[in-house]
Amino acid sequence: MAQIKHAVLLYAMQDEATPLIRRLELADKGFLAPPMPMRWYDGAIDGLRIDVAVMGSDRRFGIDCIGTQPAAVATQIVLDRLNPDLLINAGTCGGFIKRGGAIGKVYLTGGPFYFHDRRIPLAPFEKYADGGWILSDVAAWAKALGLEQGVVSSGNSLDMVAEDARRIERVGAHAKDMEAAAIAWVADQYQKPLCAVKAVTDLVDGEHPTHEEFERHLHTASEALSEAVEKLLRLIARQSIR
Amino acid sequence: MAQIKHAVLLYAMQDEATPLIRRLELADKGFLAPPMPMRWYDGAIDGLRIDVAVMGSDRRFGIDCIGTQPAAVATQIVLDRLNPDLLINAGTCGGFIKRGGAIGKVYLTGGPFYFHDRRIPLAPFEKYADGGWILSDVAAWAKALGLEQGVVSSGNSLDMVAEDARRIERVGAHAKDMEAAAIAWVADQYQKPLCAVKAVTDLVDGEHPTHEEFERHLHTASEALSEAVEKLLRLIARQSIR
Repeated sequence: MAQIKHAVLLYAMQDEATPLIRRLELADKGFLAPPMPMRWYDGAIDGLRIDVAVMGSDRRFGIDCIGTQPAAVATQIVLDRLNPDLLINAGTCGGFIKRGGAIGKVYLTGGPFYFHDRRIPLAPFEKYADGGWILSDVAAWAKALGLEQGVVSSGNSLDMVAEDARRIERVGAHAKDMEAAAIAWVADQYQKPLCAVKAVTDLVDGEHPTHEEFERHLHTASEALSEAVEKLLRLIARQSIR
Repeated sequence: MAQIKHAVLLYAMQDEATPLIRRLELADKGFLAPPMPMRWYDGAIDGLRIDVAVMGSDRRFGIDCIGTQPAAVATQIVLDRLNPDLLINAGTCGGFIKRGGAIGKVYLTGGPFYFHDRRIPLAPFEKYADGGWILSDVAAWAKALGLEQGVVSSGNSLDMVAEDARRIERVGAHAKDMEAAAIAWVADQYQKPLCAVKAVTDLVDGEHPTHEEFERHLHTASEALSEAVEKLLRLIARQSIR
């Protein structure tokens, strides 16, 4: 990867982003592109410029704009207006016990990023629907930080129907989330490096319903996430001044 | 609706848009927001300014960028840069025999626009996930043009799993498409009027697989679509100069 002087972090939920914003004492820049609800924070760490974009609160429903559509929009706005050297999608995810997942475990990955809920059985569209984007090589960073790499699979549902599960198994996903693949699709159009840091809030193949585990562990996972993200940013910053 | 002097049409596929671009002899303006693949055409009809945005061809996979993520991105770009008085999502859709659907039938609707593949069973997120946006009242236009209004439900798959079908039935959708709800979500953030013109390529509850019918009827449905869209634009133009 080329020298990195400016990274943008994309978060879906304010509760996922707040620990990092506080840790790094980032400045609240208000709305990123009004009237879209995305929020914007900026600052620096060890000489590395950092912006954080958070999806923001839906104007009608008053909740965080999770899911792939706001994520795609935010990514395009960020790449168009802030033009960073590196995009980082940070957030929580579902993990899989059978692939070593555990509550609070953090993955760092440059892909592949798949969709598991876009089924288009027309030959030329099928690969586009599934994705599988690999948009950076973070092996050295993962090793330096003691984090596992992994496959991410994204969809717009917190639960999982059988057809989603089949696709998730086919790619052997370690992290099931609701944004990464959409961010990857936009990053790919811009040919921009992307990596993801994902902390496990719930175990998809565990015994508790996803939405219950998600609510119970969101705070813990977000703290683990912010710690990992800070370490990653400091590592990138050290490399960028070499 | 306030006086309309400028309308933007959003199409997912080039084959859906080409008949209208030819009919109205719109000028090819190239890429709308490079390096995103969206294409842009403009012109006028009876004094009404018209722009057409088409999702364009994916840079990696070389096919039209169908689905909700590109649609959301294109809508934000169009509203930010072109700021029309009215958005029109024109395209093909699946219809339902049991609700009067037939190949080539055209619906004109201001909503409701639902998602059928965003399942988030957490109380504050559930309504956001499903949507149900109503973003214009087109009853008078539909009557003048002899078109039926209808409910649209969107998802990222050409096929339909049982859970999608359950949600489509719950809202009584007349048109199953892959973009409208994503466009509606962005339009809602901007408080911008949106209507959709949808022509049926395949019958979801018919005897033939969706992808076979879609390919067989895409041309016919696109011609019916462009005829209906031209009539709608001439009607709007007449009203705008009243």
